[in-house]
This record gives sequence, structure tokens and C-alpha cells, in this order.
Amino acid sequence: MAHLVYASCPLNISSCSKNSPKSWKKCLSSLPTSLTLQNSSRSFKSLPINRKNVQKLLSVRATALQQSTTKTGSGTDETSGQQPRPTRVMVIGGDGYCGWATSLHLSNKNYEVAIVDNLVRRHFDHQLGLDSLTPISSIHDRIRRWRSLTQKDINLYIGDVCDFEFLAEAFTSFKPDAVVHFGEQRSAPYSMIDRSRAVYTQKNNVLGTLNVLFAIKEFSEDCHLVKLGTMGEYGTPNIDIEEGYITITHNGRTDTLPYPKQASSFYHLSKVHDSNNIAFTCKAWGIRATDLNQGVVYGVRTNETEMHEELYNRFDYDGVFGTALNRFCVQAAVGHPLTVYGKGGQTRGYLDIRDTVQCVELAIANPAKRGEFRVFNQFTEQFSVNQLASLVTKAGEKLGIEVQTISVPNPRVEAEEHYYNAKHTKLIELGLEPHLLSDSLLDSLLNFAVQFKDRVDTKQIMPSVSWRKIGVKPKTVSA
Amino acid sequence: MAHLVYASCPLNISSCSKNSPKSWKKCLSSLPTSLTLQNSSRSFKSLPINRKNVQKLLSVRATALQQSTTKTGSGTDETSGQQPRPTRVMVIGGDGYCGWATSLHLSNKNYEVAIVDNLVRRHFDHQLGLDSLTPISSIHDRIRRWRSLTQKDINLYIGDVCDFEFLAEAFTSFKPDAVVHFGEQRSAPYSMIDRSRAVYTQKNNVLGTLNVLFAIKEFSEDCHLVKLGTMGEYGTPNIDIEEGYITITHNGRTDTLPYPKQASSFYHLSKVHDSNNIAFTCKAWGIRATDLNQGVVYGVRTNETEMHEELYNRFDYDGVFGTALNRFCVQAAVGHPLTVYGKGGQTRGYLDIRDTVQCVELAIANPAKRGEFRVFNQFTEQFSVNQLASLVTKAGEKLGIEVQTISVPNPRVEAEEHYYNAKHTKLIELGLEPHLLSDSLLDSLLNFAVQFKDRVDTKQIMPSVSWRKIGVKPKTVSA
Repeated sequence: MAHLVYASCPLNISSCSKNSPKSWKKCLSSLPTSLTLQNSSRSFKSLPINRKNVQKLLSVRATALQQSTTKTGSGTDETSGQQPRPTRVMVIGGDGYCGWATSLHLSNKNYEVAIVDNLVRRHFDHQLGLDSLTPISSIHDRIRRWRSLTQKDINLYIGDVCDFEFLAEAFTSFKPDAVVHFGEQRSAPYSMIDRSRAVYTQKNNVLGTLNVLFAIKEFSEDCHLVKLGTMGEYGTPNIDIEEGYITITHNGRTDTLPYPKQASSFYHLSKVHDSNNIAFTCKAWGIRATDLNQGVVYGVRTNETEMHEELYNRFDYDGVFGTALNRFCVQAAVGHPLTVYGKGGQTRGYLDIRDTVQCVELAIANPAKRGEFRVFNQFTEQFSVNQLASLVTKAGEKLGIEVQTISVPNPRVEAEEHYYNAKHTKLIELGLEPHLLSDSLLDSLLNFAVQFKDRVDTKQIMPSVSWRKIGVKPKTVSA
Repeated sequence: MAHLVYASCPLNISSCSKNSPKSWKKCLSSLPTSLTLQNSSRSFKSLPINRKNVQKLLSVRATALQQSTTKTGSGTDETSGQQPRPTRVMVIGGDGYCGWATSLHLSNKNYEVAIVDNLVRRHFDHQLGLDSLTPISSIHDRIRRWRSLTQKDINLYIGDVCDFEFLAEAFTSFKPDAVVHFGEQRSAPYSMIDRSRAVYTQKNNVLGTLNVLFAIKEFSEDCHLVKLGTMGEYGTPNIDIEEGYITITHNGRTDTLPYPKQASSFYHLSKVHDSNNIAFTCKAWGIRATDLNQGVVYGVRTNETEMHEELYNRFDYDGVFGTALNRFCVQAAVGHPLTVYGKGGQTRGYLDIRDTVQCVELAIANPAKRGEFRVFNQFTEQFSVNQLASLVTKAGEKLGIEVQTISVPNPRVEAEEHYYNAKHTKLIELGLEPHLLSDSLLDSLLNFAVQFKDRVDTKQIMPSVSWRKIGVKPKTVSA
């Protein structure tokens, strides 16, 4: 990492932000006759100062930074003369389900990784009396184990992105080329427990993302934001779902506009708000951003997490944080009927967590352009809930498990029979090679659930949060 | 206003919420043998207590409230047998520009009005060194003067809707039939001053509106929310703008979906977030809501505010809170060139503040159905900035004022030449009779600016906030 030594600069530079070339330019008003800049490893030549040379120096500085950073990553392309690929990746929410798997995957691919996390996901488990099916180690033990296994270090910043002072310090210290932002309250049921959790979800997610956008603008304008959205932003329209935009011809005129959103929980809505905020900053500030509208993720194993039990990822099967397919597999493993909500015709996009980490890497390696707000639908296959139940039942048979299915009253407000056809070609075009559910179900999902079935707490399985009954009184879980 | 006197109730009622019939029902477990309820003016009969009679009493209580409230309003329809029209209106943000005019108008029309306001708009003026062109009285003096002139009382709740404890108290005490929600930070430039004001704007607006939605669900499920949105939510698409929804045919299928939004400031975005949140609660909870996507409001005089100088409305002409046309009139009055941002082809919908108050009344008098999320585009005429400048120049000529126009660099990020055709027929269909700018310009706008021109502080006129230069450092105004 190149650091300019300001003491050797004869400019009165105290009023200049060291990360803002613009503020450097302002310092021209009090120019001396020459200027020498150096970083910790080498000096640049001394130049007579005029506007042109300062511009040149600023370019030199940017290049120096890029050169030093590309040394740390594998994705570099130093010899071809093309722009070096990003190598320093900040993963916000890197201790969570998708975040941890992604952090390890990127570190394994020789990206320099920093995890930013306030660990509130673990706190939710304590408050709600929940626990991961898999035993998970502390973030400190996880990182230590990764280092001992691979000699690769992962930087750790424990704090809240809603605290801008903390976030600014993390940004200026780590200097990311890309930020992957998983750092949000990510459960729809959690956001529908009570008023305070609904408000918390939108406050945390929307304001945290605003802070990330401001940090990029202020400290790292060229940094690529890879933001986790959700397919749930689109809802279930009666027309095909496109990737972020739709071309509409109306009254004889045509425009390509943001695809209409119909989110159906305060959580899903928070992601819609984020998408709208990010799109604006791309236009107004030239932020480069990729919105990954992810489907429902299943599975727990990745190449990295299976290296050691201290690297195990979390696996949620409860009614609040458990995603549909993970929950079904646990239910099958312990002989609990699969709980289909309502008619079971609810159709969504699904993907294996091994594809989540692939997709994020593809987005980072192929960054959005300056000012571009790019939307990828991140899933590999569509299933209805009834189809999932049927697949799990058949897989159970192969393991000698008899699986029952019951319908429970749908705690959500959603269409239970509807048209659903969502495009998802952009990540495939970038090189995504999907893991398909038919292959994963036995080797990465149901077998895992069976392995840990003694840890299952069946009290956590049934839905406990109602979309219609949410009230203003704070809810707690009885002992 | 009926108040039940709980002291006369022999139930151990301390654990019951006085506004929640549900919690009353729970008290049945410790029932005595009889129960007498009364309000301040009359007693209900004493009844032997069983489940059926308590249900009946709860109904009596609800009916008593409706009877007492319908007496206070003019819009009642007691003899026709139809549902009484709403008469108790809570105006959140009732001390502001649109809110004050609306509160007086509704009170004048014999609605029972409560103003809820934290007075932060006046605080912004102090912090930014701004002031209304018109001298405005305190909210307390305003209400006292209104009472002395009309014998009509306006209830006042000073507090912040982001504070749910306060909002709950205001709701349960006033028991509104309709809530008009103006209580948001409403300036696009204010939201673009610095990071903390951007975050404040979205936090205040989005979370405040969430609280209002929860208050309606919890305390007053049938209450109609009339929410002030903005035409700025739509941006400037290259197709006609519809009222909230658009029917799209795509790949051979058709659906009517929320109109795509492209807001262009953190303020405008906050209104988009609100619209999405409200639409969800209409669907999930059966909230009845009307989103008034208002254009740019001009003018200061309404029938009520002109009754006495202590009722004068505020008139903002500064670069932060001043709307385009109001600012132009003040500029003309003091001989300052009209400041057109960029090319001046920016076209928007405009309306007279006398139409704002009409529109809100029409929305209240014709409430949305349960579960309906209704969107009205609330403006009467479209103008480009150049057209406005030209109209003000011509009006100035009639008053003997020579008006110059200059182009200043556009501080915003927006298209300066674009297609714009927005529908606005729904309020006309409900009976709106527009005031047109050509009539208002001289008798309600330019003459007002001339009358108060000695109060103009020309330092406030030029744009001081840049969409592109916003940073994380808190900004203050130098003395």
C-alpha cells in the first residue's frame, strides 16, 4: 500500500483531504515553486510546480496506489497493459451466512479481504433463542484458523456501518477497490415481528447503505459497490421479470425504466429503498454499482468452509432466519413434516451458496463502469414450494427417510398461485457455472442436516411471525 | 369528545389498554357481576356482565365516539343512513407551508383539526440563517388568533412522529378519522447539504411514516391516511406519467404495476420509499391510503390565512426551501435577476396553494377504500423554468418592474431538456376547480413579494447546495 509522506511536501497541505484529488487542486492557490512526493518505498522526481504537473503528480499517485494494491491479489493483469483488476475487497457483513462463505472464497482466490461486521446476527440468535444447526466458531477463531490453514490473512473491523465515524476509519485504513455489502438485517419474518424490529430493519439497512455510498464518494470514488439485493424486490408480477430494467412503450413513446417493484415485507422493502438510493448516487456522483438481486440461497458447504470445522458456515432452519429449502431438509432429517405455507404454489428463484460466492467474485472481477447501476438477477433455478417439498421427499427416500408434508396457514401476505418467470442470464454470460439442486440436494444439504440432526430444536421450526398480526408492542420470546 | 370514566368501572382495568378492545376482552377473566360506564356528559346503563354484554358495551363505546365526533364536523351525513364522512383530521406537519394552510382550511370547513408538529422547520431556519419573507407568528399565537376570529379550536400536539410513544398518545387521545401527513423534511437541497442531513432526511421521513402506519393499524384501523408525496418521485421519463400505476404488456402478458420511479435527491427518494412502504401496508393490513404526488406549490394566500396577519403563511424564497416560482417573484420584486438553473428546460407540474388545500379536502371527503393504495397527481399546470421566467417578466412589466433573467450553473443533477407529460385528472374528477397561474401571478404572488420586499435578504437567493459536491463533513453557515 503506498502512503504519501506529506511532510516532504512543501505545500501548506493541512486543508487538503489526502484522499481527494479535488481538494489537492484547491491547494494550488498557495503554490511554492517545486514539489517532491514520495511513498514509503520510493520517491517521485521533484517537479517545478504548475497546474499541469500537479495533475500529473495526482495521476502518478493514483497509479502508484494501484500498482501497490495489485501486488496483493491474484486477479491482476499487470503485463497486458489493461487496467488492473480490483484486489482489495471489503466484505460488510462478512461474519454472516453468505458473507462468511464469500470472504473465504475471495481470500482463497488471493483477494485481500477485510471483514466489516458488528456481529448483530449472533446477537439476534441470543435474543430470539435460536441457534445455527451447525456449530459455528467465533469470528476471531474463524480468521485464526483460516490463517493457520492457508497463511492468508483476513482483516477484521468490528463495528456498525450505521456509525459513520467507524466506517470512515475502516475505509481510509483498508482502502478497498470493491465493497461487497451483505451488512443488513436480512430476514423478512424478523422485520415483521413488531414495530421496533420493522423500524430497526429499515433504519439499519437504508441508513447503513447511505453511509457506505458516502464513504465511497468521499474516500474511494473509484471503488465498486457490490450490493446484495433480493429477487423479492420484484414481487410476483404477471409479466416476465427482467434484470433491473424494463423497456416500456406507452402512448407511442418508449423508454427503458427501472423495473417496477412490489416488495412484500419491511425487509424486502428496505432493499428496494437501497436500490433506489444507489441508482441515484450512480447518476449523481458516478458511483459504480452492481445490485445482485439474489434468490433464496440453500446449502452450507463451500470448498473453503469444509476445510475445517472451525470454518463451518451457519445453517439456519428456524421460522425467522431459515430459508425454505434449508428448513425442509432439517425437517426431513428429524422426521418433522415439511411445512408448506398455504397452497405452496409460491415460486421463487433459488441458488446454491457455492454459486453465491461465484457470482460475487464474477461481479468484482468484472466491475460496473463509473456511473453505471447494474442489476443482475442472482439465482440459477426456479421452484415452487410444492416442487421443493416433492424433491426433498424423493431425496429422503434415497436415504431411507420417510418424509411427510403438511400445509400450515400462511403467515405471510403473498400470492400462493401466480405466474413467475424471471430472467437470469447476465451472470451466466460472465461465466457462472451453476450447481443444480438435483445434484446438491443429497451431497451438500440433506446429508448435512442428517449429520447434525441431534442439534435440532424442533420448537424453532414452525412459523412464529404473522404479517397481519404485527403490532406495536415489543415482542419477546418466552423461556 | 367522549371520555370513558374508568373510575366507575369495577373491573381491575389497570392492565387493559383503554383503546384496545382486544385487551378489554382479556380482562373478562376477572369479571365482577356488573359494570357501569359513563362519559363526561351521560351514563350508560348498568349491565350484568357476561361476554355478550361486554361486547355490546364495547360497541356502544365505539358508537358513542362516532356520534360525538360527527357533531363537530360539517361533512356529516347522519340522516341518509350512509357511513358518516370523516370529521376528525390530524394534520402532521400542520405548522409548515402546506400544513398550516390546510389546517386552517379544514377547520374553516368545520372539520375537527389537530395539528401534530415538532416545529423543526422553524429550527432549520435558525440553523441555516434563513427566514420566511412573510413574518409568521408562533403556532400558539396562530391557533389563539384563529380561535378568537372564528370560535373554532385547533388541537395542538407538539412532538415528533419518530417518537412512537408521543405519536401513540396523540392518536389515542385525538382519535382521527383521517391523517394528513405533511410531517417530513421537504426540501431537496436540504437533503443534499451534507451526509448527516441526507441521512436525517431519510431517517425522519421513512421512519416517521412507518410509525404513522403502525399507529393507524394499532389504534385506528379505519383511519384514512392522506400522504403528501411528490411528482418528483417519477423523475422525467420519456413516456407519459400516469397516476401511480401503469399497465404494461410485455412478452405477450399484461399487468398493471406501480409506475417506475426515478427520484433525483435524497429527499425525493425518501418519498419513493414512503410510497412503497404504504402500498405494502395497504395490501398486508388493509390500510386505506391516498398518496398525493404534489407538484411545485406557489403562492402564499388562502381565504383563511388572509383573515389576519397573525395567520399569515410562511413564504420561502431562499436557495434551500424556496420553490422555483416563489423565488422568482421575490427576485423580481427586489430587482435581482431571475436565476434559471442551467438551460431552463426543466418542466414540472405546478399548483397554487389554494388548490393544495382543496385537493387535501377532496381526498379526505372521498376516502380510499380499505386496502386501497390510491395515487393522485396533485398539480394543475405544467411549465418549464424558462416559461416561468417569461411569465414573471411579463407580470413584472404590468407592475412597472423591469425583470432580468440569468442562467446560473445548475447545482442539481437533472435533465435540462426533456419530454414531460403527466396525467392529473383524478382530482379534477373529484371536483377540483383549479386556480390558474395566469390569474394568480399578480393577485396572490408577485404583489405579495413586492409588499414584503424590504424583508428580503438577497444573500439567501443563490443556490448554495450542490448535488455533486455533497460530502461527509458537516456543513454550517458562516455568519
